[in-house]
Amino acid sequence: MEGHGVLLHLLPGTGHDGGAPLLVHLEHERAGLGLRVAEVGLEHVAHIAHQVHGIIPDHDDPGLVQIGLLVRPNLLLGIGTGGKAYCHSVHSRSRHRRPVAGYSHSGRTAIVLRVTDALTTDPPAAPPAHALVNAPNSALFTDQYELTMLQASLHSGAAHRRSVFEAFARRLPAGRRYGVVAGTGRLLEALSTFRFDDAQLAFLSDRGIVDDTTLAWLADFRFTGSISGYAEGEAFFPNSPILTVESTFAEACILETLVLSILNHDSAIASAASRMTGASAGRPCIEMGSRRTHEESAVAAARAAIIGGFASTSNLEAGRRYGLPTVGTAAHSFTLLHDSERAAFEAQVASLGRSTSLLVDTYDVEQGVRTAVEVAGPELGAVRLDSGDLVAQARWVRQLLDDLGNHSTRIVVTSDLDEFAIGLLASAPVDSYGVGTSLVTGSGAPTAGMVYKLVSRQDDDGRFVPVAKAAKNKVSVGGIKHALRRLDEHGTAQVEVVGIGLTPADDGNDRPLIQQFVRDGVVLPGWTGPEAVTRAADRHAHSIAELPGAVLRLQRGEPVIPTEYEEASA
Amino acid sequence: MEGHGVLLHLLPGTGHDGGAPLLVHLEHERAGLGLRVAEVGLEHVAHIAHQVHGIIPDHDDPGLVQIGLLVRPNLLLGIGTGGKAYCHSVHSRSRHRRPVAGYSHSGRTAIVLRVTDALTTDPPAAPPAHALVNAPNSALFTDQYELTMLQASLHSGAAHRRSVFEAFARRLPAGRRYGVVAGTGRLLEALSTFRFDDAQLAFLSDRGIVDDTTLAWLADFRFTGSISGYAEGEAFFPNSPILTVESTFAEACILETLVLSILNHDSAIASAASRMTGASAGRPCIEMGSRRTHEESAVAAARAAIIGGFASTSNLEAGRRYGLPTVGTAAHSFTLLHDSERAAFEAQVASLGRSTSLLVDTYDVEQGVRTAVEVAGPELGAVRLDSGDLVAQARWVRQLLDDLGNHSTRIVVTSDLDEFAIGLLASAPVDSYGVGTSLVTGSGAPTAGMVYKLVSRQDDDGRFVPVAKAAKNKVSVGGIKHALRRLDEHGTAQVEVVGIGLTPADDGNDRPLIQQFVRDGVVLPGWTGPEAVTRAADRHAHSIAELPGAVLRLQRGEPVIPTEYEEASA
Repeated sequence: MEGHGVLLHLLPGTGHDGGAPLLVHLEHERAGLGLRVAEVGLEHVAHIAHQVHGIIPDHDDPGLVQIGLLVRPNLLLGIGTGGKAYCHSVHSRSRHRRPVAGYSHSGRTAIVLRVTDALTTDPPAAPPAHALVNAPNSALFTDQYELTMLQASLHSGAAHRRSVFEAFARRLPAGRRYGVVAGTGRLLEALSTFRFDDAQLAFLSDRGIVDDTTLAWLADFRFTGSISGYAEGEAFFPNSPILTVESTFAEACILETLVLSILNHDSAIASAASRMTGASAGRPCIEMGSRRTHEESAVAAARAAIIGGFASTSNLEAGRRYGLPTVGTAAHSFTLLHDSERAAFEAQVASLGRSTSLLVDTYDVEQGVRTAVEVAGPELGAVRLDSGDLVAQARWVRQLLDDLGNHSTRIVVTSDLDEFAIGLLASAPVDSYGVGTSLVTGSGAPTAGMVYKLVSRQDDDGRFVPVAKAAKNKVSVGGIKHALRRLDEHGTAQVEVVGIGLTPADDGNDRPLIQQFVRDGVVLPGWTGPEAVTRAADRHAHSIAELPGAVLRLQRGEPVIPTEYEEASA
Repeated sequence: MEGHGVLLHLLPGTGHDGGAPLLVHLEHERAGLGLRVAEVGLEHVAHIAHQVHGIIPDHDDPGLVQIGLLVRPNLLLGIGTGGKAYCHSVHSRSRHRRPVAGYSHSGRTAIVLRVTDALTTDPPAAPPAHALVNAPNSALFTDQYELTMLQASLHSGAAHRRSVFEAFARRLPAGRRYGVVAGTGRLLEALSTFRFDDAQLAFLSDRGIVDDTTLAWLADFRFTGSISGYAEGEAFFPNSPILTVESTFAEACILETLVLSILNHDSAIASAASRMTGASAGRPCIEMGSRRTHEESAVAAARAAIIGGFASTSNLEAGRRYGLPTVGTAAHSFTLLHDSERAAFEAQVASLGRSTSLLVDTYDVEQGVRTAVEVAGPELGAVRLDSGDLVAQARWVRQLLDDLGNHSTRIVVTSDLDEFAIGLLASAPVDSYGVGTSLVTGSGAPTAGMVYKLVSRQDDDGRFVPVAKAAKNKVSVGGIKHALRRLDEHGTAQVEVVGIGLTPADDGNDRPLIQQFVRDGVVLPGWTGPEAVTRAADRHAHSIAELPGAVLRLQRGEPVIPTEYEEASA
């Protein structure tokens, strides 16, 4: 059972684990691949295939190690990592010979798994091609006034003034203690399709929305500026300079709507996801909200959920596009389709295997559990509860499963959960949480409230001038921003320091927050595709772990760290 | 000024209207085109071009006539209509010779417009080609369990049982009195791209998500069933059978996620939009929330907003894809870009014309208004207020404009509005409302809460058997549903009548609610593309007008009409 540097140890299981799991500890190799094996309660062992498809190179940005390991048969709970690591695949002997394991991370972590099949070893799988075949042209995801402003500024000549726009949130949703940045990778991907091709130009011309000079400018448009900001997965606070776009006014202006659509949506979902994974305290959360939001939002929501610490998603397109782990087995309709619950369970187990998850609440939960165990035996992977008083139900279902000898059968709950419900289930014997509506709607805050403001632009002499709107209730702070997170001697964050027109002084161990994403029109490597998601998920875990412990409090409060401003003297 | 059956009359303007508007009354012609000229406060007269691009044929579904006319120079307020009508274009003498007018509807309505240019007449514009060039493959907008259920049911043979799935909402969002159906047209469009092509099959195969038998079935998949339900724009209530899908279990099951994603999102937006247009009482509402939601959701939200009575949108892709009217002029950044507010206004007026809308709250509102009037003169189209106490501000800005002689300059307000804020502005001299965040997030209800349930399926003898889940808190009513809206002698709706397994008896003037969208795999004409949006907007106005007046109450309450069930005896 060894090969390619793989060491396999036996490790005692937890209370409900009837068998001996395998500890796969892989040697660190600097030149290898980094794999994020999500913190996922796999529906059955074959699903680890999804993990291995998530393997991607990770060139920099050393990640961190976490998270609580929970072991049951057929359950693999992995470890977030962005570090340089060696990846190794192990295949099961299943019909499809799906890859099933494992990796290491900088010698600091290991991966625990338990499989029912015997294992063989295979060479590492190649990273999947990253083909965003669904990517549309993004140029008209744009408010009309961006283009009429472009026209008027081309007319006045001001369009060519070098300008700095900044995306930031004036405040967090009421009572939230932090937000989580997400969407930057999608924005950079969309930038490559932000082209005014024939279809876009014909529309603008036919409608007479802009004049011929502007149409000609748009036809030639390629973004030539620079974009920097907080990396995906990073925690943010009010007025954190999340994205800075530096270019001509013309080029930076027309990106406004796209920038905000993506950051506002994705950050709202990642922020909610982060609170949920904080409340779940290491138990895996599964994103399953696709049906409660727009079909493309669902893909982006799955991506943002993974960044916010979720283990997997039900959304297949998100799996395909971003290499995310996907899960799912059956719904109530499958039971209703068959002549009896038993017939449905028999059909499911015959096709998907004994390690599948059976939904036991279509008729009577107790009878459903008993039938499930009778049909699948002690190897039944999980039962899913989708209704009722979950705390009480999980307890007696756990007891019933144990009484029936199914110590290793997991309990998955999926009924209208949010971070509060997850928190309330902490004491219940639940193995994983499926979250839908509340996640994809941002748990009460479906948009992150970010704005995109011109903060500085050149004058006729070429000097940069800070600018800011000064109407009532909306005071903007003009000037180019920089930021770092001030840490104490224990590495715990104390203050968000925002420099206005200057880079704040590092007091020794502060962490700079601004990353460069685009330089002179060129998207820098590592910030797009599946790789960006993997790195962002690791960064998220690191960023949250660095904040004071109060970050995990669900009750309403102030931002968990204050923001201080340093301003250049005039 | 006459031609093509056009009659032009002079009509007195309203209080702030300095000039004489034109009444264009067009003769009804059965064989002609139906045009919905939205209830829109045009930013300037050239924008009527957007309307004319919205012309589409309307083959059936007689629409209705409304709505309050409000007249100012450069302001055209049209009338929703889906009836058979004659459409006629009038072009301005502008550089682009944009079409600017007008249409009739069944002799019942007329269109009021006032333009600053002299008019000439031109033949009607041709409908634009409907090219959904951004349409991606929709097959993987799907939860994994739909496909694992498919696999298991193919294995058991139950996949081929004829089945009926139904989409419905168990309840309305707390306190809402009605919901509005939207998304059906988008669903039917997405159905045509729901194909398992190489990219989709390769993903499913590589991951081992389904077996080879299932992959082969998916590769051949074309939906061969039938789909019926409530038409877009229709009001709905708890348990209204909004969409019914009849096919094999296999075919109907795998559509679940896509059906729900689209209906839940679009209906949530249309329902919120409808409350806002109800509160605006005829004043045009402009959708401008793109930046607060996912970039593709933004397109769907604009479409749903128009269905819910909005006049126009800022979203260009929505304009291109669905032929919607689009508007927009300038943001604060345009003012900040220039060396002074005056320089910015001069640049905007020089490029976009005096009839443009100037944003006056970047620095000081009073000075902004004065500068705007000095720069643009009495022909200034509108001022936009985006901050502050809008009720008080609108009053004194109106007074100031009148004092300066700008009686015909409109006031557009756009600051975090929702249906309640719009209601509070009813007494203020505001001409149109721009609505963003609140609209695209469903004003507190970002998803419509619809579910998709198997309600009936064949047994081995070919008989249809009603089926329903019976777990706690979620009791479904099995059986195929039919529905009609029971009207009183005045044509006002009294009761939603849902027949379970039977078509309820029509008591004489009841309105049947179920429309056929797809028959044996063929999408029926009239339910997709721009045409569907136009018809849905008209249907919405009709459906709301038919409900009791309490439908317009914003405070929390019960559904405005009750639902009664009629059930076939066993």
